[in-house]
Amino acid sequence: MHIAVDAMGGDHAPRVVVAGAAEAVRTAGVGVVLVGDADLVRSELARIPDSSSLDIRVVHAADAVGMGESPVRALRRSRSTSIRVAADLVATGQAVALYSAGNTGATVVAAHGAMGLLEGAERPALATVVPTSRGPAVLLDVGANADCRPAHLVMFAVMGMAYAKVGLGITQPRVGLLSIGEEAGKGNELVRLAHGLLRDSALPFVGNVEARDVYSGAADVIVCDGFTGNIAIKVSEAMVDMVQQRLGTEAFEALRRLVDDSERGGAPLLGVAGPCVVGHGRSSACAIRNGIAMAHRFAADGLIDRIASGLVGVRGSVS
Amino acid sequence: MHIAVDAMGGDHAPRVVVAGAAEAVRTAGVGVVLVGDADLVRSELARIPDSSSLDIRVVHAADAVGMGESPVRALRRSRSTSIRVAADLVATGQAVALYSAGNTGATVVAAHGAMGLLEGAERPALATVVPTSRGPAVLLDVGANADCRPAHLVMFAVMGMAYAKVGLGITQPRVGLLSIGEEAGKGNELVRLAHGLLRDSALPFVGNVEARDVYSGAADVIVCDGFTGNIAIKVSEAMVDMVQQRLGTEAFEALRRLVDDSERGGAPLLGVAGPCVVGHGRSSACAIRNGIAMAHRFAADGLIDRIASGLVGVRGSVS
Repeated sequence: MHIAVDAMGGDHAPRVVVAGAAEAVRTAGVGVVLVGDADLVRSELARIPDSSSLDIRVVHAADAVGMGESPVRALRRSRSTSIRVAADLVATGQAVALYSAGNTGATVVAAHGAMGLLEGAERPALATVVPTSRGPAVLLDVGANADCRPAHLVMFAVMGMAYAKVGLGITQPRVGLLSIGEEAGKGNELVRLAHGLLRDSALPFVGNVEARDVYSGAADVIVCDGFTGNIAIKVSEAMVDMVQQRLGTEAFEALRRLVDDSERGGAPLLGVAGPCVVGHGRSSACAIRNGIAMAHRFAADGLIDRIASGLVGVRGSVS
Repeated sequence: MHIAVDAMGGDHAPRVVVAGAAEAVRTAGVGVVLVGDADLVRSELARIPDSSSLDIRVVHAADAVGMGESPVRALRRSRSTSIRVAADLVATGQAVALYSAGNTGATVVAAHGAMGLLEGAERPALATVVPTSRGPAVLLDVGANADCRPAHLVMFAVMGMAYAKVGLGITQPRVGLLSIGEEAGKGNELVRLAHGLLRDSALPFVGNVEARDVYSGAADVIVCDGFTGNIAIKVSEAMVDMVQQRLGTEAFEALRRLVDDSERGGAPLLGVAGPCVVGHGRSSACAIRNGIAMAHRFAADGLIDRIASGLVGVRGSVS
């Protein structure tokens, strides 16, 4: 099994991507296809002593999407961006999963475009794992959809449950809805409507989860629109950064690992019809390694099939 | 000058409210009107040795709004809730400002109902102060409006600027818009539309501020809808709680003071036609004292007039 890796994606690409990919091949029992400027990628591979003995292939892509670039514009500009070529490898069966630490929006658009959406998914969603006092929980969407309709949040719940089962080993994940108060009537219009849909669904819905309870383990899968979710995780990371600045470095590495996806490798993009993991732009080689291993695990564990069958269950019950 | 204090509001009311109010009278050069169940309040005052020598009056209110109660329902249920009677004292000139650590929604509705809104405000907004590496900044709305229109965010910017000047001494506050990307096109529909209004206004608009830059001082006044703002501050507080649990207690008290409004006393409710400070439900007596002193300062510094004249400037330029 090979993982298609966007070699040009990330703040320190292609160097740390190539280094992380090599480490994934060495340690995670997986092969990698590095997609990007072939000359650049090969010169990075040449820096790695044992690279010729590793199961690494290189596929050339002439262009790359910049980290700050508009995804839609970038993907229109060129058919041969590294993220697009990498996504196509999965769509055509030449790789089993996609990993990118590049422009998140471009990864979402490319994966969606190349692989399509699972039936019933309606929208892809980016999931992240948050630490809680009862263990890890899934928070989604954290950035694939700035605007959502109520039914989307139900789909996110279904997809998040499949991810919680496969990715975190939670056998009976409970679903919560991120809001500003626990009562059903609390929240913005989206949340109030989504609350009704979730309550009337067959899902194990525990009700609204306040932001202060995100880290307390009130639910195993917490759904929200991608704007709110992105603000929530980014502001938490910023808080950790500030803590670190104010109180010194040492003790905080352990904490950063809790809130930073790097340790875990990245955020799975759910809803697209193939495994796709989105890494942080600032990913280290270690984070890249973990992200690729995560993509491999999703492919091996059949995450996509689990999500697809979960979606079958709710299709038609919400619109 | 007397501050009207909702003696029944807060997780530990009336005891800590009465204790905090007494401390404010002792140390902040202010008089206080305690509004609530007169027997209960007087029995709490009796526990304070020097209370008879302090400038504290008691006004009876037969009812109180519970912390989890629906604000609209509670205020419809009774005309004599402590928060409503306290707000009326300000509206009728018997007190110069309102302080409550009770049900936030009820405080917003009662203050709005009794004092009315400033011309041009359209909506009240709850402001909070966040620590940044360049000093404090104002974030609003953090919970008064779960759903907003783009023009509301412009009004929030104007009100937040007045607060930054009066409350924080920032002479030329820069305005930012909380979003999930720096570019103008990034964000949800509300943010994209608000971006255009802010850009075309005469306000010192620095553009979108990503959540990761909230604590880095990219702007002095950061505006957002009340749902997003509430999630952002609550999730940050939750993160600090988790940090504390994981890494021990001592060093974190300093940090908690940075992110917890308690030290500062509370969040001003902007837009209503009188000074109003909303404390945390879990406020200690010290936090109550600080909140009342804050309300006093707003009354003494003419915050309301500053906001009113700021609103005159933008009225008509957005709709």
